[in-house]
Amino acid sequence: MEYIFQPRSIALVGLTSDPNNWMGQGFLKGLLEFGYSGQIYPINPKASQILGLKAYPSLRDVPGPVDHVISLIPAPLTPQLIEDCGAKGVRVVHLFTAGFGETGVENRKRLEGELLAMARRVGVRLIGPNCMGIHYPKSQITFDMGLPEEAKESGNISFLSQSGANAGMLIRLGSFRGLRFNKVISYGNAIDLNESDFLEHFAADPDTKIIAAYIEGIKDGPRFRRALVEAAAVKPVIVLKGGRTVAGAGAASSHTGALSGSEEIWSMLLKQAGAIRVYSLDELGDMLVAFSYLPPLAGRNVGVIGGGGRASVEAAAICESAGLFVPTLPSEIRSQLSEFMPVAGTSVRNPVDTFNFFVPQELSRTLELVASHSGIDLLVFQQELGMITLDGLWRALLLTGVEALIETASRIEKPMVAVFRYRGRPEDISLLTEAEQRCVKAGLAVFPSMERAALAISRFISYHETRNSA
Amino acid sequence: MEYIFQPRSIALVGLTSDPNNWMGQGFLKGLLEFGYSGQIYPINPKASQILGLKAYPSLRDVPGPVDHVISLIPAPLTPQLIEDCGAKGVRVVHLFTAGFGETGVENRKRLEGELLAMARRVGVRLIGPNCMGIHYPKSQITFDMGLPEEAKESGNISFLSQSGANAGMLIRLGSFRGLRFNKVISYGNAIDLNESDFLEHFAADPDTKIIAAYIEGIKDGPRFRRALVEAAAVKPVIVLKGGRTVAGAGAASSHTGALSGSEEIWSMLLKQAGAIRVYSLDELGDMLVAFSYLPPLAGRNVGVIGGGGRASVEAAAICESAGLFVPTLPSEIRSQLSEFMPVAGTSVRNPVDTFNFFVPQELSRTLELVASHSGIDLLVFQQELGMITLDGLWRALLLTGVEALIETASRIEKPMVAVFRYRGRPEDISLLTEAEQRCVKAGLAVFPSMERAALAISRFISYHETRNSA
Repeated sequence: MEYIFQPRSIALVGLTSDPNNWMGQGFLKGLLEFGYSGQIYPINPKASQILGLKAYPSLRDVPGPVDHVISLIPAPLTPQLIEDCGAKGVRVVHLFTAGFGETGVENRKRLEGELLAMARRVGVRLIGPNCMGIHYPKSQITFDMGLPEEAKESGNISFLSQSGANAGMLIRLGSFRGLRFNKVISYGNAIDLNESDFLEHFAADPDTKIIAAYIEGIKDGPRFRRALVEAAAVKPVIVLKGGRTVAGAGAASSHTGALSGSEEIWSMLLKQAGAIRVYSLDELGDMLVAFSYLPPLAGRNVGVIGGGGRASVEAAAICESAGLFVPTLPSEIRSQLSEFMPVAGTSVRNPVDTFNFFVPQELSRTLELVASHSGIDLLVFQQELGMITLDGLWRALLLTGVEALIETASRIEKPMVAVFRYRGRPEDISLLTEAEQRCVKAGLAVFPSMERAALAISRFISYHETRNSA
Repeated sequence: MEYIFQPRSIALVGLTSDPNNWMGQGFLKGLLEFGYSGQIYPINPKASQILGLKAYPSLRDVPGPVDHVISLIPAPLTPQLIEDCGAKGVRVVHLFTAGFGETGVENRKRLEGELLAMARRVGVRLIGPNCMGIHYPKSQITFDMGLPEEAKESGNISFLSQSGANAGMLIRLGSFRGLRFNKVISYGNAIDLNESDFLEHFAADPDTKIIAAYIEGIKDGPRFRRALVEAAAVKPVIVLKGGRTVAGAGAASSHTGALSGSEEIWSMLLKQAGAIRVYSLDELGDMLVAFSYLPPLAGRNVGVIGGGGRASVEAAAICESAGLFVPTLPSEIRSQLSEFMPVAGTSVRNPVDTFNFFVPQELSRTLELVASHSGIDLLVFQQELGMITLDGLWRALLLTGVEALIETASRIEKPMVAVFRYRGRPEDISLLTEAEQRCVKAGLAVFPSMERAALAISRFISYHETRNSA
């Protein structure tokens, strides 16, 4: 896999010289933005220069060695490219090129077979076709342009994704949720290198601590099962299965040409392997946040702390619906809480229903007291915003509250998640995102709704329970 | 109920003269903001004027008749107030005053009983205690200050809520989701007028077309069951049951002093009556959006239209998980769609996976074609945003797309819902809310996520299916 993730040079074959074709030039722009330090060779029969880089009419004209080729040419021209790659000593070709088996058209399926046969003959490995290829911040490689700055930071999550859009979207949404990736691979039709190759690599890769996968269909069932069992034995593996229902299966099939397999088989396979199943990209992001920012939890007991009688009642009910426990706090902690909390309209039992987000010392003291109870495994801080219009003063108070939350979380010995629930004027929502982003940057596990927080926490705990009992 | 909702005058007893006590002056500020046209009498033994209105030392000093009293005084003083109300001919007293049975303290429970006995003796009806009272835009009455302008518009939803915070929050979030209320009542401990009184009133009220309820506990089971069955027979009744789990029950009990009753009894009761159960305020809002903006649907077949291969696959899967069908479009529609949609990477089967949100004519044509299929009952438009940074040009293109969506929706004969899914830079989220708000203002049913849209649509269809088969 070394040649895939650490190429000394990359050639982009079929790169357009049209500066207005942002999709066509996206790969090159992404590499330039990320500061890829190897050689980049644009290949275009007519251009002498593209985005400031010298262009070459064909791959064979490139002066130095080429480790990695990105194919942007039409599908019928790809067998000839592979032949050129063999002659040039290229080891890996990533085919962004689409229009193969995924179209369902007979001669396009045949073309796919010819392409693979040619690659085998000349000793070139293929990624794709019909995919975005690799994103690996450590080598300053990405397949996307205009990514947030955070996406350049290397982390310990690796993601294999049959869909390029899922790969790009998880990187983007992950940037704002504090997720940092080691390797991301979009592998499309997987006619050569497939899901099992990448899963095996991630399982063995010391830089990968958490594995995420988006899979529509598999190439070799028994091998994949083995790879999955082995990977899940050593690292959390979170799987989003694409095309799991009838219509979804149709769309997934046209998307990457994969057959989706039956729901029952997948369910059993993932369960037996000890993989964690999620049902949307958002849920995948939620689980990655949990695994990135929470330590293994000793139990299911949460202390729900936050503002608003109704919000507290609802938050506790949502936690319990998701299989968490919200135990009543012991009387000594309740009486300490009562020292500074008013009686009417609040509760100190758990949920601890406070209006003190805007009084930083009280907020800190509340979190400390609940955290001090040995019967609490995790603090769930939730604050509903929207009853008051967040103008100047309230805005400042809110951000002071956020600082107190972050400072206290860094100090207390219990893990904490934070949920800001916004229901105010749409034009004020930027303040919510500011509060969230401050918490994310401080290393808190932040979720966009109580429902999603509770589900992710419960699945996270289930994962550790299953492993501990195994 | 006339005296409750159309008082000629309102006295606020115990109103603070401290302009910095925004909670204390909130009721008066709310009435002034809403432009209540009846007489308002602030009652305060020391102030001569509050917020520009002449204040009176006691209720008995008010020169004219008083229909409605809002009590802001401490609990122990309320029996005396009720006696004054009797002498003054007041018909309804709303007790914002808390500190009664909900505290769990024995002498406070006794006080509640004394208060009720006094009210019965002098012929005064009570709302509360421990609640926010009434919000009725038609009479320019509200219990909240700083509400959005939209909250002043009268509509056809009436909401009975044991929690004042739930009442206020639903009005606020509803303002931005296109929900318009007829009557909202926060009734707290319900020692006199209770959930059955309000439910019966809403069922008979010609201005109320949709009934929403947040209930923690009930006072008279058999009467409530009768009222619920009768209300649900004539109007949709959507119920959020508070305190449904162990911890929630604890919090709900301290919140309004109600006992929550067992989950099983509630489940059966709501199901037998044909009421719709929801599990959070967000879900309640979602159902109210569906009932406010969708006609009864003929079936469960949805056409899922929108951008992005991955987003389409996921959206279709989410719909099917929620019990909707995403049927393959017939070949004549598929071939018409193919005329202007590229082959690779898109699908015209359903989900219809387009990148054409930014090409208004194609977007309109796509919606028209899918709507023209008799096998489709509802269009689900979903657009994922975040792959591109929404700067100047894209921002303009996005809003042009929104206008095309709105224009087409107004023209085609099939109902439509819209979901914008945002995963981009947090600082760009205001553009998403702008797109959403334009759709809301144009009368589209807008949902904040595919999961919530699919669940609400499915429950909405189930409601009509059950009624049709009954």
